[in-house]
Amino acid sequence: MSKTTSIRFKDNQIELAHGAGGKASRRLIEGLIAPILGNPTLNDAALLSLDTSSLAFTADSFVVRPLRFPGGSIGELAVNGTVNDLAVSGARPLALLSSLILEAGLAVETLQAELEAMQATAQRAGVAVLGGDTKVVEHGQADGLYISTSGIGLVDSRVALSAKAVRPGDQILLSGPIGDHGITVLLARGELDLEADLKSDTRSVWPLVEALIEAAAPGLRWMRDPTRGGVATALNELARETRLALRLDEEAIPVREAVRGACEILGLDPLHIANEGQFIAIVSSEFAEAALEAVRRSPGGQEAVLVGEVLEKPGGVVYTTNGYGSSRVVDMLVGDPLPRIC
Amino acid sequence: MSKTTSIRFKDNQIELAHGAGGKASRRLIEGLIAPILGNPTLNDAALLSLDTSSLAFTADSFVVRPLRFPGGSIGELAVNGTVNDLAVSGARPLALLSSLILEAGLAVETLQAELEAMQATAQRAGVAVLGGDTKVVEHGQADGLYISTSGIGLVDSRVALSAKAVRPGDQILLSGPIGDHGITVLLARGELDLEADLKSDTRSVWPLVEALIEAAAPGLRWMRDPTRGGVATALNELARETRLALRLDEEAIPVREAVRGACEILGLDPLHIANEGQFIAIVSSEFAEAALEAVRRSPGGQEAVLVGEVLEKPGGVVYTTNGYGSSRVVDMLVGDPLPRIC
Repeated sequence: MSKTTSIRFKDNQIELAHGAGGKASRRLIEGLIAPILGNPTLNDAALLSLDTSSLAFTADSFVVRPLRFPGGSIGELAVNGTVNDLAVSGARPLALLSSLILEAGLAVETLQAELEAMQATAQRAGVAVLGGDTKVVEHGQADGLYISTSGIGLVDSRVALSAKAVRPGDQILLSGPIGDHGITVLLARGELDLEADLKSDTRSVWPLVEALIEAAAPGLRWMRDPTRGGVATALNELARETRLALRLDEEAIPVREAVRGACEILGLDPLHIANEGQFIAIVSSEFAEAALEAVRRSPGGQEAVLVGEVLEKPGGVVYTTNGYGSSRVVDMLVGDPLPRIC
Repeated sequence: MSKTTSIRFKDNQIELAHGAGGKASRRLIEGLIAPILGNPTLNDAALLSLDTSSLAFTADSFVVRPLRFPGGSIGELAVNGTVNDLAVSGARPLALLSSLILEAGLAVETLQAELEAMQATAQRAGVAVLGGDTKVVEHGQADGLYISTSGIGLVDSRVALSAKAVRPGDQILLSGPIGDHGITVLLARGELDLEADLKSDTRSVWPLVEALIEAAAPGLRWMRDPTRGGVATALNELARETRLALRLDEEAIPVREAVRGACEILGLDPLHIANEGQFIAIVSSEFAEAALEAVRRSPGGQEAVLVGEVLEKPGGVVYTTNGYGSSRVVDMLVGDPLPRIC
């Protein structure tokens, strides 16, 4: 990602012509997008030479509202979300492409801020944004800016992740507190009479995953980043696929006070709230302590915990238990209490 | 792309909950998207094993209006457009991912038709749609359906495409008639009092490109699919990059009567109109005839022609000449006479 020419784009608004592929598109790409993303030519296809190896290839769209919120923005999400999909596949993120759908009338300032956020986030995550595509739709046919990101990564040859590998007795590792992202975005909309000192957890989890692989690859069964639908949805998908039970220790699950408070007022379960910088790993019991130690020693991993275990029965069910001896079944998210959270 | 379970999704409209990642999302994905696209699990990342080789990786968004038009639809464009970006990079298309942004209120029938179109088009093109992502935005925040597609392909080791390789004396090969797609979509909007017996040229150009590579790889310098902005814009980009002149023989450029007529009425230049199933190749003069023969012998390549040549001067200019001895400079597209054409 070499430094390129400076920003020369002087328009104040995105217009339909900026998406037409002609002169205005060229000015937008060469004057703004390429200088910020550091890819001067933005060819349609990016070429990569690879050794014999396994490749992860992922794609996501981002439509979060509002575009910016405490701790992050749509551009950061678009990079970290794709990086994290690769990371939980056991793949070192290599390269991203981003496709933008812009609403005519979007302030260039807003677009520029998001491009800069993408580039800075990609640099922090150690990946290159190799190019992409830009389309513009009429005013009123999008909400400012939507970003679709795709990424490829190199799968670490030491890992073989699969729901099929999960066994009774395996431990459930969670990388940190849950619900920060979803509640932050919800409050940032200003539609609720609620405030909290909270920010999105958006970040690349690859450094934590890499430490985990180094320490516990032979015991690593399955990973997932619990975004939309939260931890509950990710684990329910695993429970259904394995027909095993997943027991969570309710008191062990890290939830910040502000998140817990907002969830209580709104009638939401923190286990259903989206995260953008956490992951769940299923690790064999013999490697569980080593895995936890490795994540905790990594910057940003101090709050990792073992939150539960895999059991044989009741098959297909996720449930919590607590110190008072009560338990409750945790279902998948139903409906959409939090639209456009990522 | 194995056949999977049948369609079980019974809802009539897409709602916000279908994009929330919970139960409704699961129903949509397992009940509709996965059965049609043939990828039952739709994991976030698709894994591919590759030998030592060069990989092409591309991404595009599609926002065409209307969603369906004579000869094609947004789903077909989304597949062929990405396949063609790989093809003109000299890469055999291997796999695609698709991210959908859906407007709440979209008829499921419409979505289903587009998913089916994507799958059928991918099968014809010999690529797998490995997965993707689905987001839903509020009614009025998108126009039915936007699709972002990314793809990877394996670069043919015999080709080394680059604007830098282009030399004076090289020939310009065009795969067939221009302007069909753009004019078809424009007329399909029904806003003009014009009709024509015309359909989009959307198709995979890989079979033609493959034949070209087989016959003329050592002479193949540069390729591009002239989509938004048309042949004029693609060639102007090449002219600027090489600082060479590109001369087109005006009478040699294939333009159907219906396209020519519509362009005359609307004051448009066929060279500015988008194509979705054509490509331009710059070929050294010694391989030009072999290249043309190879493309013409391939199904769908019968109308290929050599339309011009690369000259030293005037540097950076694209121009046409005709049999009457007159010439005119062909500039890039200015403004956007045809918004949301792909």
